[in-house]
Amino acid sequence: MSNSVLISELAWTEYEKRLAGGRTPVLIPVGALEQHGPHLPLNCDTVIPTAVCEEAAKRIGALVAPPIEYGYKSQPRSGGGNHFPGTTSLDGHTLVLMTRDIIREFARHGVRKIAIVVGHTENLMFTTEACDLAIRDLKAQGITDMKIIHMGYWEFMTEATMHKVFPDGFPSWNLEHAGVMETSVMLHLRSSLVDFDQVPKHAPADFPPYDIHPVEPHRIPASGALSSGQTATAEKGKYMFDEYVDSIAKALTKEFAL
Amino acid sequence: MSNSVLISELAWTEYEKRLAGGRTPVLIPVGALEQHGPHLPLNCDTVIPTAVCEEAAKRIGALVAPPIEYGYKSQPRSGGGNHFPGTTSLDGHTLVLMTRDIIREFARHGVRKIAIVVGHTENLMFTTEACDLAIRDLKAQGITDMKIIHMGYWEFMTEATMHKVFPDGFPSWNLEHAGVMETSVMLHLRSSLVDFDQVPKHAPADFPPYDIHPVEPHRIPASGALSSGQTATAEKGKYMFDEYVDSIAKALTKEFAL
Amino acid sequence: MSNSVLISELAWTEYEKRLAGGRTPVLIPVGALEQHGPHLPLNCDTVIPTAVCEEAAKRIGALVAPPIEYGYKSQPRSGGGNHFPGTTSLDGHTLVLMTRDIIREFARHGVRKIAIVVGHTENLMFTTEACDLAIRDLKAQGITDMKIIHMGYWEFMTEATMHKVFPDGFPSWNLEHAGVMETSVMLHLRSSLVDFDQVPKHAPADFPPYDIHPVEPHRIPASGALSSGQTATAEKGKYMFDEYVDSIAKALTKEFAL
Amino acid sequence: MSNSVLISELAWTEYEKRLAGGRTPVLIPVGALEQHGPHLPLNCDTVIPTAVCEEAAKRIGALVAPPIEYGYKSQPRSGGGNHFPGTTSLDGHTLVLMTRDIIREFARHGVRKIAIVVGHTENLMFTTEACDLAIRDLKAQGITDMKIIHMGYWEFMTEATMHKVFPDGFPSWNLEHAGVMETSVMLHLRSSLVDFDQVPKHAPADFPPYDIHPVEPHRIPASGALSSGQTATAEKGKYMFDEYVDSIAKALTKEFAL
Amino acid sequence: MSNSVLISELAWTEYEKRLAGGRTPVLIPVGALEQHGPHLPLNCDTVIPTAVCEEAAKRIGALVAPPIEYGYKSQPRSGGGNHFPGTTSLDGHTLVLMTRDIIREFARHGVRKIAIVVGHTENLMFTTEACDLAIRDLKAQGITDMKIIHMGYWEFMTEATMHKVFPDGFPSWNLEHAGVMETSVMLHLRSSLVDFDQVPKHAPADFPPYDIHPVEPHRIPASGALSSGQTATAEKGKYMFDEYVDSIAKALTKEFAL
Amino acid sequence: MSNSVLISELAWTEYEKRLAGGRTPVLIPVGALEQHGPHLPLNCDTVIPTAVCEEAAKRIGALVAPPIEYGYKSQPRSGGGNHFPGTTSLDGHTLVLMTRDIIREFARHGVRKIAIVVGHTENLMFTTEACDLAIRDLKAQGITDMKIIHMGYWEFMTEATMHKVFPDGFPSWNLEHAGVMETSVMLHLRSSLVDFDQVPKHAPADFPPYDIHPVEPHRIPASGALSSGQTATAEKGKYMFDEYVDSIAKALTKEFAL
Repeated sequence: MSNSVLISELAWTEYEKRLAGGRTPVLIPVGALEQHGPHLPLNCDTVIPTAVCEEAAKRIGALVAPPIEYGYKSQPRSGGGNHFPGTTSLDGHTLVLMTRDIIREFARHGVRKIAIVVGHTENLMFTTEACDLAIRDLKAQGITDMKIIHMGYWEFMTEATMHKVFPDGFPSWNLEHAGVMETSVMLHLRSSLVDFDQVPKHAPADFPPYDIHPVEPHRIPASGALSSGQTATAEKGKYMFDEYVDSIAKALTKEFAL
Repeated sequence: MSNSVLISELAWTEYEKRLAGGRTPVLIPVGALEQHGPHLPLNCDTVIPTAVCEEAAKRIGALVAPPIEYGYKSQPRSGGGNHFPGTTSLDGHTLVLMTRDIIREFARHGVRKIAIVVGHTENLMFTTEACDLAIRDLKAQGITDMKIIHMGYWEFMTEATMHKVFPDGFPSWNLEHAGVMETSVMLHLRSSLVDFDQVPKHAPADFPPYDIHPVEPHRIPASGALSSGQTATAEKGKYMFDEYVDSIAKALTKEFAL
Repeated sequence: MSNSVLISELAWTEYEKRLAGGRTPVLIPVGALEQHGPHLPLNCDTVIPTAVCEEAAKRIGALVAPPIEYGYKSQPRSGGGNHFPGTTSLDGHTLVLMTRDIIREFARHGVRKIAIVVGHTENLMFTTEACDLAIRDLKAQGITDMKIIHMGYWEFMTEATMHKVFPDGFPSWNLEHAGVMETSVMLHLRSSLVDFDQVPKHAPADFPPYDIHPVEPHRIPASGALSSGQTATAEKGKYMFDEYVDSIAKALTKEFAL
Repeated sequence: MSNSVLISELAWTEYEKRLAGGRTPVLIPVGALEQHGPHLPLNCDTVIPTAVCEEAAKRIGALVAPPIEYGYKSQPRSGGGNHFPGTTSLDGHTLVLMTRDIIREFARHGVRKIAIVVGHTENLMFTTEACDLAIRDLKAQGITDMKIIHMGYWEFMTEATMHKVFPDGFPSWNLEHAGVMETSVMLHLRSSLVDFDQVPKHAPADFPPYDIHPVEPHRIPASGALSSGQTATAEKGKYMFDEYVDSIAKALTKEFAL
Repeated sequence: MSNSVLISELAWTEYEKRLAGGRTPVLIPVGALEQHGPHLPLNCDTVIPTAVCEEAAKRIGALVAPPIEYGYKSQPRSGGGNHFPGTTSLDGHTLVLMTRDIIREFARHGVRKIAIVVGHTENLMFTTEACDLAIRDLKAQGITDMKIIHMGYWEFMTEATMHKVFPDGFPSWNLEHAGVMETSVMLHLRSSLVDFDQVPKHAPADFPPYDIHPVEPHRIPASGALSSGQTATAEKGKYMFDEYVDSIAKALTKEFAL
Repeated sequence: MSNSVLISELAWTEYEKRLAGGRTPVLIPVGALEQHGPHLPLNCDTVIPTAVCEEAAKRIGALVAPPIEYGYKSQPRSGGGNHFPGTTSLDGHTLVLMTRDIIREFARHGVRKIAIVVGHTENLMFTTEACDLAIRDLKAQGITDMKIIHMGYWEFMTEATMHKVFPDGFPSWNLEHAGVMETSVMLHLRSSLVDFDQVPKHAPADFPPYDIHPVEPHRIPASGALSSGQTATAEKGKYMFDEYVDSIAKALTKEFAL
């Protein structure tokens, strides 16, 4: 039977064995289908957290659920805005229900350690709400020992790495959309899907401290990237990716008392 | 840039070109994470329609959206029931909203030809409702030229093939859960994920003409399969898969006037 | 006080006595207001299951709830489509909530044996979802001994009867919409509402194995019937009706240990 | 074909003729399944408005939709409270969606004149909301000429009749629950379902000017009636019923410019 | 630390002390932003119940939650209709969820005595539903000792006061919209916001016993008031206000066993 | 008539005049009822944006809507977590619907320039979703010229001010919960509600880069504050407040072309 850490690739009989009475963590990647400039594929926000989960799972004996591949609406200041072709988003309520339902189902299987690993900034509050609603529903069903760790994978970058990868200064996580970090990690994970020639060279986007509805596209870089990934390399990507995996594996080991 | 038909692997700029002013169809696989006996992985209902979409898309110049990998609750008489470990399902309303949101977003990109290719029987009425709600919402937004083709891929099997694959008689689509058809097609598409030694040998399940809530597990084959896949082969799988692809490609060509 | 098995006709004091501490089953017909060709009234899908419930209730000492008289949207391949005048349907979510609420209320009264008797194919998955949600809610309220039997009444037809009623071959349950079975049973139950002269004589509808949204009316028989009821008779109707009642009464007696 | 004014009894072809291009009004009774003391059946709030609609429809050439037979939760001060066995109620949101969906469907058929005839006080605000939501949805679909008349049938009683029926003074519409008016009209319409011997003789209920959640049953007359129907007679019932029909027919004739 | 009875003005540490293990009642005013004629501000329905709560809280040692300042849609016969500029209303479901959420949160803090003090007739059924849903949710969470008193403050007016304030006869609570009672109480509470010169002098509105959707503005007094507040005085306002406070304080003292 | 910029204090006739055909902006404060340490009242997140709106409105001729005084659930890393007594929060969906409904109503009045001024970090994504849904609904109603500016007021602090107020370094906006900024501004706006003696002196909270569900209270400073407000002063508060008002007034003047 499959040695995979991917739940989707296991037969239910094997999955049941792996659960080990609920002691095995399940990691759920929550991504998006969102434009990431002319040089990166639309699946960046799904590919990266899924790969992080897969590597971390191998180290800590966890399992990985199929990713949620559609996320909340892209926002101008963190994702360029939801008006780009290709960006395919859910209403907030839909994402909440989707994530809540999945958590409840893993709880039904007996899982008691879940990590929600978000790859798309705009998801964070909706997946947070999903965790809260799931915990509430589970309590009503008499399940009170669930523990969920909820994270954006990028928040695990250390300051040391930040200085190393951005020697000229880190713009901000929001402006990093389709920038050096994501481009580097995708070069590491899916180089064939990265068209480095197309990396935009423009200056970081400059936004006022507010948003406008409906979006005004002319205020957003036409490329869809919010900063340039010109200094991205696969090596930087590997370095960051390994650090994410390492830090997340350590955090989960500690939190789940593995 | 990528030659993939998978939207997820395209940059938005390439995706926009491929849309060709809305004349390009988008195929959306809607699967499930559901037990399929001790010999098949949990992702059968996602893998098969996604592969069908990918091959059909290549032939007709269409694009394939990321699959919805979680489906509606498994029912005893068509999927063994939702109580098995590994079966990870959504509330009906969640699946409706998810599918509706995605259709609306492709409409926003300019897509006007969509195929919903379902891989899990239990999804059908909820994805049907999603199509209806999406059409209604689009109408309210002034979009009246959307055309959606909604199908379960298995319904395209011809009688001739049915006789060939099931020389001793076709049980029923419901009892085919994890049976000869799905096992064969998975042997063709993902042989490494099929553990043929584990194929159950029991007789087809025998159900009364009604369902019981809550489910009574002892009435359902303990394997989770509703009939035996013992006579499955990769050759049969290829034959059926090719037929699905061929028939669906033809149907979409006709319906979308490609 | 009334001897009726219809809950609606009882005073609450009589109803309370009849409940017998929750041992009395409650049967809930779930129908539709849907076109059934030019010869049958719009209420076929409500009249038949309500009559089945009433007769079955008399035999097994059950009670019958007022029917839900509006159902889910008619589908082209099983009901002709939702575009006909007269077809008056609910959103899927509405039907789910309606059915769920009613089940929860009977549970509050102390009922622990419920049968959902569906008269309209398109309802089935939504009433299924309602059963699942009701069971979940009841569990959260501490009620864990509810048992619900969920059925489409027509699924109780035996093969012997099928051969008898359709000597030239049974088309399919979907094509039976407004065909021989429904016409016969309505002739038996409500002959004054059947206009036999109007029974369409056209061949059974011929559909591809998929649906189209929005519906394309020209692909559907203009009569609204999917096959001809020309060979329907009141005698056949009585025969089938009696069999439905008999089989359902037996099934409920067994399942509810009456 | 049927001469009935009940839509449920018409074939769709007859229904279409009767619609007369949208000039024919459709009357929708919205009732409840609610205890009405030990002497009246649970369906009072459905039977009365349905009968009113049927008679009014005959006079003005209107059609009557199948009643909504489940209503909003009974309140102590107007219906005795929702804790009685037999009272079977919907969540407010469910009743709103149900009513909204039905209105939208009649609009799709071409109906432009709708009367919502409520038989259960507690429904009124939820059916009001349904009217508002339906009008909003229809506007978004481009339908701007719908007119809905929304009423509780009892509000049409004249002061003269009130003095005649209640010579000793009218308690209040709320206390009239299962009292003289409803008992009289049911004696007129369904005498076989009224057990006059069981009419409670207690004084009208005496409530403080507020409600308590959860309900405290001991504060409510044990009979479920809020005042005594001892002075009810079929003659009074006929008189009031005829007046309702007459006044409502006149009001609709005027409002719909029939 | 603040001596305020307003929860909003307390630090959480002070609030916790005041809760006294759940024995302290929390009063929640539920108002509206609704036109009240040319002479009264839009906040009447919030100001009055909030002031009532504040004074009552001082007497009985209760706390007052921030008011819900937006209410359900104004109805022609009780508020003039929702079409006036300034009237800013919620969908029914929104108001239900809002009120339910707040009740659940106070329950989480340990509060077990809650009064919902409504200032806007149209809210009543939706806040009633909120109480019911909150009680149900709390029960599922294991909290079974919550008691909620739900009221419209005006229902506490005694008949004696009614005769005193309306010596020429009381029109009806519905017609009192922006009439003598509200104008008087606002003169007492916020005289600077009342423009007495603008009090309409027209006769009370005259409505048929039904509502029309969409609203027909010409049937409603152009002023937005449904009766004239010409005889309003601050003295009457003080008298009524004091009576409300007194009666409500007494009722809560009794119901909460303070 | 009132000169107030608060919509709640205007009669509808005055409000209508002030709207000036939709050219007048409406500012909507969206706050919370949330613990802010032992020294600040629960209403900080409502008081500050409401005051900002009021002052800004005076400068630019805008109007201010009643604040939404309940917000989304407090999160540990930005608000201390939702488990503190006093913190009284809404489900995400509720806040979305509430905000959406209000925007739609102002649009119905003719308003076309709206600013959502958020005072509580956790609200931001839900009020963002509300803006998106409102814009979508309005489009379906034919209103396409609405412009909404959405902001967290604190994002307008300039770097210069940040250096001035936090000479020893700015912790982060998240850690600023109940810290120097909020304490200072509250000292300026509501000094009587600030108990400076109670300002916690502990070090800033130290969180890992993830959240845990359900919350683990022992990981959060027992005070509820995430950093110390010891260096707060009313002068700093006035300085920051004035800057907020000034910057926001300028931004709105520009965006709304006032």
